[in-house]
Amino acid sequence: MGDDAAAVEIGPVALVTADTLVEGVHFQRDATPPRLLGRKALSVNLSDIGAMGGISRYAAVSLCLPPQLEIGWLDALYDGLLERAAEADVAIVGGNLTRAAEAIVIDVTLLGDAKTTLLRSGARPGDRIVVTGTLGASAEGVKLLAEGARLSEDGGLASSGIWTDASAAAVAACLRAQLDPRPPLALASGIAEHALARAAMDLSDGLSSDLQQMCDQSGVGAVVDGAVVPIDPAMASIEGARGGAPLWVALHGGEEYQLLLAVDPALVDELRQLGTVFEVPVTDIGEFVAGPPQIRLRDGLAERPLAPRGYDHFGATSA
Amino acid sequence: MGDDAAAVEIGPVALVTADTLVEGVHFQRDATPPRLLGRKALSVNLSDIGAMGGISRYAAVSLCLPPQLEIGWLDALYDGLLERAAEADVAIVGGNLTRAAEAIVIDVTLLGDAKTTLLRSGARPGDRIVVTGTLGASAEGVKLLAEGARLSEDGGLASSGIWTDASAAAVAACLRAQLDPRPPLALASGIAEHALARAAMDLSDGLSSDLQQMCDQSGVGAVVDGAVVPIDPAMASIEGARGGAPLWVALHGGEEYQLLLAVDPALVDELRQLGTVFEVPVTDIGEFVAGPPQIRLRDGLAERPLAPRGYDHFGATSA
Repeated sequence: MGDDAAAVEIGPVALVTADTLVEGVHFQRDATPPRLLGRKALSVNLSDIGAMGGISRYAAVSLCLPPQLEIGWLDALYDGLLERAAEADVAIVGGNLTRAAEAIVIDVTLLGDAKTTLLRSGARPGDRIVVTGTLGASAEGVKLLAEGARLSEDGGLASSGIWTDASAAAVAACLRAQLDPRPPLALASGIAEHALARAAMDLSDGLSSDLQQMCDQSGVGAVVDGAVVPIDPAMASIEGARGGAPLWVALHGGEEYQLLLAVDPALVDELRQLGTVFEVPVTDIGEFVAGPPQIRLRDGLAERPLAPRGYDHFGATSA
Repeated sequence: MGDDAAAVEIGPVALVTADTLVEGVHFQRDATPPRLLGRKALSVNLSDIGAMGGISRYAAVSLCLPPQLEIGWLDALYDGLLERAAEADVAIVGGNLTRAAEAIVIDVTLLGDAKTTLLRSGARPGDRIVVTGTLGASAEGVKLLAEGARLSEDGGLASSGIWTDASAAAVAACLRAQLDPRPPLALASGIAEHALARAAMDLSDGLSSDLQQMCDQSGVGAVVDGAVVPIDPAMASIEGARGGAPLWVALHGGEEYQLLLAVDPALVDELRQLGTVFEVPVTDIGEFVAGPPQIRLRDGLAERPLAPRGYDHFGATSA
């Protein structure tokens, strides 16, 4: 720190990723405890390096802050960044602080080491479509924030908004999935080490959209079995109460920061066992198939096309 | 591109830097041709890696853009980024595009190779204070933009604003220094290779402010000879016409993207010769001295303290 650039030991192959959180687009200031925001700014990048099979090593943090922002807010943001960096064994090696006109912008660039790299383009017909974790809680968290539900700085439930105490645990779980996502980094690293996936990416834009990208880049189609998609139980209980459609949220909700994998059918059991070791659910939800890069959703005996539905970004692509 | 992160060959020691340009803070949209903005977004980072003695290799570009922005603007920005990347032999390996509420934000992270690294902390009493290039044109460019002077996309003078044709060449030179800075990368690389400097940094916040930082980090004082500071001639002619103070602009103006160096007196001639090879002025402007980290300005026979005067950023620090 203090020089024009930071010198770091890395390579011979390094992974680099950069992701940005913009106030009003990715978070609302009044609904987001800054400590959790700092954690998330790092987590979304940790997820990218993890999904490539890499080990995150160094982060550079660029902050654009409006001058009237309270210093306590910035302190809490840094607390979260540093705490998450320590958890992930990442060194924050540089960055810069710039005045913003109005909206807070947090840009994190993360460098990682890679021995093998997992790409999006490796899926083959016959591979199983596998996802980690449960899906839909993070997107449900966005709705709950709009309904006044809030977490405190320490991640506890500060308010359940329009929801009664009976829903408190489910509300808190969905808010945590949105505000403090925990990508399965150790599992991802194990998958890369044991070559358990032919293609991998993180679920950031929603299953339907991310699976479409993997199909596009691998030149294959996909058939998803709606009956086995791992619907997040907390999200399902909230959606149930609002008369919603849990499967729809699980298929299209974004910001899961779980893994989407293309797996040789012979390796699915070994992958499942690895998931058990790291306490991450691993679910086989369907099959990659020969043909055009289109997704079909099996719904009982019927199959229908599943159109990718982007998350709330405008033409956003993450590299 | 297209994966969660980019895999690059680099190391064993890599340099990493990230710098951000924010609309309304670092540039005004209507006064900045987007092609030149793309060039500058890369140049300010090239300058950081160069000042550390590194060779820039890979860039990741994060853009936050308001949705109503015209696509032609984005095209021109990318043209400038790609053109500058080609000039500097840098590969753009990733990045992301995010919706902004209002202000455009361009964040570039740059990775470079380093064999030796030039730090800010190496200056010793007795070392000469050396700067490259001429100083003050970029800061004058900011004033000229406010007075309506404009460059076109190709870097030609589109309007000289309130200034007459007699000043056109000087106006254009100052605007180019501000909108399309050219850090002396080849010279910087030569300085690192031949170990011609004990400390180095780029002049981004202005000589007085950057020299103060080098003094702070090296634990030395500095005496600058006002009579030999390399005042940019275009800036001097404009400042002369407005009854201004060219030396003041040269001492405090920011965004030069030239080099500030601490040089062993025995090596100054060799450094000057290297400057001649790369057609970059190299000027010995004074001496680092033992004592507290304070700058004194020699003005004829008198010496007075020179207070660092920050450029137009709020507590901005660049790493």
